[in-house]
Amino acid sequence: MKRVYMDHAATTPVDARVLEAMQPYFSVKYGNASSLHSFGAEAKQALEESRETVAKAINAGNEEIVFTSGGTESDNTAIQGVAWAGRDKGKHVITSRIEHHAVLHTCEQLEKMGFEVTYLKVDKTGTVDPSELEKSIRRDTILVTIMHANNEVGTIEPIKEIGEITRKNGIPFHTDAVQTFGKIPIDAKDMNIDLLSVSSHKLYGPKGVGALYIRKGVKIKPMMHGGGHERGMRSGTENVAGIVGLAKATGLALASMPAEAERQAKLRDKLIKNILTIKDSWLNGHPTKRLPNNVNVSFKHIEGESILLMLDEKGIAASTGSACSSKSLTPSHVLTAIGLKPQEAHGSLRLTLGKDNSEGDVDYALEAIEDVVAKLRKMSPFAR
Amino acid sequence: MKRVYMDHAATTPVDARVLEAMQPYFSVKYGNASSLHSFGAEAKQALEESRETVAKAINAGNEEIVFTSGGTESDNTAIQGVAWAGRDKGKHVITSRIEHHAVLHTCEQLEKMGFEVTYLKVDKTGTVDPSELEKSIRRDTILVTIMHANNEVGTIEPIKEIGEITRKNGIPFHTDAVQTFGKIPIDAKDMNIDLLSVSSHKLYGPKGVGALYIRKGVKIKPMMHGGGHERGMRSGTENVAGIVGLAKATGLALASMPAEAERQAKLRDKLIKNILTIKDSWLNGHPTKRLPNNVNVSFKHIEGESILLMLDEKGIAASTGSACSSKSLTPSHVLTAIGLKPQEAHGSLRLTLGKDNSEGDVDYALEAIEDVVAKLRKMSPFAR
Repeated sequence: MKRVYMDHAATTPVDARVLEAMQPYFSVKYGNASSLHSFGAEAKQALEESRETVAKAINAGNEEIVFTSGGTESDNTAIQGVAWAGRDKGKHVITSRIEHHAVLHTCEQLEKMGFEVTYLKVDKTGTVDPSELEKSIRRDTILVTIMHANNEVGTIEPIKEIGEITRKNGIPFHTDAVQTFGKIPIDAKDMNIDLLSVSSHKLYGPKGVGALYIRKGVKIKPMMHGGGHERGMRSGTENVAGIVGLAKATGLALASMPAEAERQAKLRDKLIKNILTIKDSWLNGHPTKRLPNNVNVSFKHIEGESILLMLDEKGIAASTGSACSSKSLTPSHVLTAIGLKPQEAHGSLRLTLGKDNSEGDVDYALEAIEDVVAKLRKMSPFAR
Repeated sequence: MKRVYMDHAATTPVDARVLEAMQPYFSVKYGNASSLHSFGAEAKQALEESRETVAKAINAGNEEIVFTSGGTESDNTAIQGVAWAGRDKGKHVITSRIEHHAVLHTCEQLEKMGFEVTYLKVDKTGTVDPSELEKSIRRDTILVTIMHANNEVGTIEPIKEIGEITRKNGIPFHTDAVQTFGKIPIDAKDMNIDLLSVSSHKLYGPKGVGALYIRKGVKIKPMMHGGGHERGMRSGTENVAGIVGLAKATGLALASMPAEAERQAKLRDKLIKNILTIKDSWLNGHPTKRLPNNVNVSFKHIEGESILLMLDEKGIAASTGSACSSKSLTPSHVLTAIGLKPQEAHGSLRLTLGKDNSEGDVDYALEAIEDVVAKLRKMSPFAR
């Protein structure tokens, strides 16, 4: 059976060139980067070269990159670390209602520990209003964390405007760039970003590795204590093969970025245009300021989960909401935040394209979606 | 040049069979284990099969295993998690002076947050006295954390006796088993262990993955917040390839365990016996209750770092103290805890054997060590 993977926001296959770059670091150059001997030196060299690649990708200094186990750890480290380091100055954190759970649940945890969190509303396109953010700043605000682009509806947030506001007010600004790093340009300096989270497995790198950019001078406490790796910011033997993989994936993504973004955006637009010809359907997220690979649509009267299962039978992998919440029965917090009613939020379908998706895949998916939606509506008591 | 790796306590090469088992999960079965489609189901199945393998290895239930990014994260999660979950009951933690930094520095961090920590002394063999531990228990003791075997001097601690005491007193007992898992038998139930840390890269699995055993019923707070993976205990997309690697490595280690432990112990004893014929040398750690692969010796009047560098020139990878602290100038906290003076602690050499070390490697190392020690003593002003 034909298999079409259109769930690249959940995870991506490791690129063959990435896997090849990783291979020597499993069984040949396997040293511990902290060891003094030649095996250790080999590992250390690979580690530092990888750091430089990731740093350059966002116009950061090498010493501003800390390797982590992934996006969730990067988000937790940034938010917990900056909040606790700033506890003497204040206890107020600003975020938005549509952040990834790695941000939202970390903020909720901070609330339990005595911090106060403002969860900014978004408009119906899923966009944070920078002037609302500015108004919510208090004297005791010690952190702002707003994602670069939303993982469910693909909306790209006005990060540069937010960065100007936070920098002007002297407040550390963290952005979860898990969905944008390697897909659209990021310049941490130009965008006034103080902390930025990266996940390798969203850009054809391996799972279990990520990075956190911490601008020089930002005060932050480590979350993980131990041998003092990563300049004391993240203890634990470095995952050299994984880090080499992240760096290789970063290099490949940057090299193909403008062309690939344009190609995927065309496929995205074809998907959207054709899906919206189906009766009682609409697009979620921003019509233009959205990730080049993200399609998020809703169909009245049917359940997203049923669409998924029937698409899966046709070999198509898609999602409703994020992968992390796909097994939960509560409607997506993102879709409800942009104004969908719970029953509407349940009828959403997310297709996220990748570099291996062809126009043929898009045509196959379109045909399947039309078929599935028609079948489900025939069965639905509400649709009659 | 011949290369002889005798630093297996720092890290190990990934076994070829482990790497082979991992391969499909990078670029073929690459789904996110939380996804609802068939790619996700493949990943989920591999994840749960791996969990069963790791659980069985220590006589635990599947639901008692949480996958992490490595030993440091497991230690941090166990210690921070149990301490904060028990904060209402008390604020006292018991550990030893010879724990790994992932334990010691986490305990020190707890002290900064208002907890009190007792750091138990050890005797000159590096052994914790269970009766001393029992005496240090207070009404408000909420956690005991004592390593299974020491990473520097190889001493195996009386874990079962300690487990009896903690269970009798109703106190959660964590053990860092990073150096023992896969090397000597562990039965979490029989040993009354409540939490146990595992690291994959110490047993021929990949770096960047580990596990934490949490006995059912133990109260613990997660350290990493997000999508609620690992039954809410550890958010973040599971590193499926890494976890499959850890499970494969676990299976291989268990299958070869008694024979391999015996073989390595013989090589260890040959190393020790012959090294101790060198004048002014002694063994650190317990003479018999020690890891089958650990040799830790000291040479009067010379620096461990100089030995390492000269051995490295002969292709031999060894260490002085742990890899994590090998770049620090302070003497090993373990060697000073067992009674060595700082200048004596600086003259130590750790050789940790692995499954690929042959008797020929041992002979080569012995010749090299004798040569290096003689040369260094000729240069040392103190040795004359």
